[in-house]
Amino acid sequence: MENKVDPFGMSEIKDYDKILREFGVSSFAPLVKKLPKPPAMMRRGFVFGHRDFERIADAIKNRKKFAVLTGIKPTNYLHIGSKFVIDELVYLQKHGGIVYYVIADLEALADNGISLEESANIARDNLLDVLALGLDPKKTVFYKQSENPTVLKYAQIFGSNVTTNMLKAIYGERETRLYMAALVQMADILLPQIEHGKIPTVIPVGFDQDPHIRLSRDIAKKHGLIPPSATYKKFIGSLTGNPKMSKREPEGIIFLNESPDSAAYKIRNKAKTGGRDTLEQQKRLGGRPELCSVFELYSYGLLNDKELAKVYKACKSGKLMCKDCKEIAVGKLTAFLKEHQRRRKAAEKIVDKILC
Amino acid sequence: MENKVDPFGMSEIKDYDKILREFGVSSFAPLVKKLPKPPAMMRRGFVFGHRDFERIADAIKNRKKFAVLTGIKPTNYLHIGSKFVIDELVYLQKHGGIVYYVIADLEALADNGISLEESANIARDNLLDVLALGLDPKKTVFYKQSENPTVLKYAQIFGSNVTTNMLKAIYGERETRLYMAALVQMADILLPQIEHGKIPTVIPVGFDQDPHIRLSRDIAKKHGLIPPSATYKKFIGSLTGNPKMSKREPEGIIFLNESPDSAAYKIRNKAKTGGRDTLEQQKRLGGRPELCSVFELYSYGLLNDKELAKVYKACKSGKLMCKDCKEIAVGKLTAFLKEHQRRRKAAEKIVDKILC
Repeated sequence: MENKVDPFGMSEIKDYDKILREFGVSSFAPLVKKLPKPPAMMRRGFVFGHRDFERIADAIKNRKKFAVLTGIKPTNYLHIGSKFVIDELVYLQKHGGIVYYVIADLEALADNGISLEESANIARDNLLDVLALGLDPKKTVFYKQSENPTVLKYAQIFGSNVTTNMLKAIYGERETRLYMAALVQMADILLPQIEHGKIPTVIPVGFDQDPHIRLSRDIAKKHGLIPPSATYKKFIGSLTGNPKMSKREPEGIIFLNESPDSAAYKIRNKAKTGGRDTLEQQKRLGGRPELCSVFELYSYGLLNDKELAKVYKACKSGKLMCKDCKEIAVGKLTAFLKEHQRRRKAAEKIVDKILC
Repeated sequence: MENKVDPFGMSEIKDYDKILREFGVSSFAPLVKKLPKPPAMMRRGFVFGHRDFERIADAIKNRKKFAVLTGIKPTNYLHIGSKFVIDELVYLQKHGGIVYYVIADLEALADNGISLEESANIARDNLLDVLALGLDPKKTVFYKQSENPTVLKYAQIFGSNVTTNMLKAIYGERETRLYMAALVQMADILLPQIEHGKIPTVIPVGFDQDPHIRLSRDIAKKHGLIPPSATYKKFIGSLTGNPKMSKREPEGIIFLNESPDSAAYKIRNKAKTGGRDTLEQQKRLGGRPELCSVFELYSYGLLNDKELAKVYKACKSGKLMCKDCKEIAVGKLTAFLKEHQRRRKAAEKIVDKILC
């Protein structure tokens, strides 16, 4: 199976084990038991790999300073897949991480041609979600790349030490503006250490972002900083069965600012399940949760362990039909979206103070 | 004759007329009479070419807003050649120009590998010269590239619109860091219009910097700004007869912070003149001021028109021998350097306030 890893374009990963083997990425599984109350997606293998996450596990255990950085490109509204990304940040923040939330507006400009004005509006909506999901604004550094002088300065400083050959080796032959965007990201990734001195920093990403991680680790070494750690999450599939939720296919995504009715409609009418061709077959053979987009949502965190086990068993044994199962999902999603959107409204009061 | 134009490396220009013909640069001579009391180097043809300087001449005449921008790479002490560059700034400032004095520390880093700390020290010394030469700090915007958030931001914005092919067409195949440095310069060059709206801006440069001018004019058009104007100065030759003063050959340069004794030594012992092989020949045939590095210094502005005419005539007619002529230069330089260095001392009082 061919993996396609492109930080600037479409990525498709079919074989996560191959990634562990071929890219020198370590399996995350052995670290799970070292973490205090890890969230579902860590326990359930969706965080499948890491680089140097031991440093972060140690920092958590020994209550030492560490940072967590995420760069969100403000090109689209956040969706249910993004929720699980933010959950990881919130978890790491609760266990002592200084969180940096980077609004990657310069990357959106260089890579997607989205103007800074346009992305400011999307970024504001994203922030409502992030706050509603429990990121503590008092313990989080929020900034836009375009407005952070330290980041802009260090992009140039780091850039002065990087050859085009290094960039080509990591990213392939790209437009200069994409190399520049990558160098801005290097400054983002190393900003916690620029501001706090040498501290472990973890970047939770999808594996498509690994080129940035690798370059940042090279640059960190050159500048006497600690090579950043990373966790790698599997892509969450679209409801329609595509391997990655993508804004190119909105009917396969549940947005966090979407009405519960619209979400219910998508679950009922668009979600691809692991159901059999006929009810009779399903009763006899049982469903296939491993092929089911609804079960994927459950697994990422929509159901707790007990609920998940119950649904799994009922599905496999042919007792739970897809139609009824989807109603469970609709119920859970409706409850989540209602509460989430109530919290978004509350966040309206503080969102504009965060970026001033 | 082959001209070599390289904004990042060594340039050598042997045929200025060819530049006017081949690069679409206009001759400066017809504009001289439109300017109020133009300085020696404009009247005497050292400012040999321009692009769109009519806009600036009009702005001066009609007392309209315009800007003058110079970027000085803080890689070395300023020398007598730099003085004539600053003279042009001072002249344009006296006639209404808003002067931007850019300390090109990021270019020094990218192009010469000089750290920001190192270049800060040199930049401070350069500033003493610039203030001593009469640039009015109250009417000048001084900044370091590395510390100007607007410049750093617009380097990225402009960069997002520039393709690698455009960069290659203008600069040739270069390291990414040099393309990035060029984009920072684009932001420098267009900063007056970012800060003041659409106003004519002139960049006085040596022709080796023309690629930056051409790119900035392209970018200005794309972003609805006025394409910057430029004046082009001939390179001032070294005392030893090389076509350009270069820090690689310090004995051919008179630095502005150099002792008058040291300057006198270089004039007396290093300066190549247009003298003949023997005194007898010189008396009979006359000297050759057009081949003389001392006469070049005179022409750039060390002598006024009357003095210059007198020396020229005495030299050509075989009445003035090189030894005596050099003593005239020593006298002029000594007087200039003493006064200049007194002014540098006075500037010590304000220099550290300028960049805070």
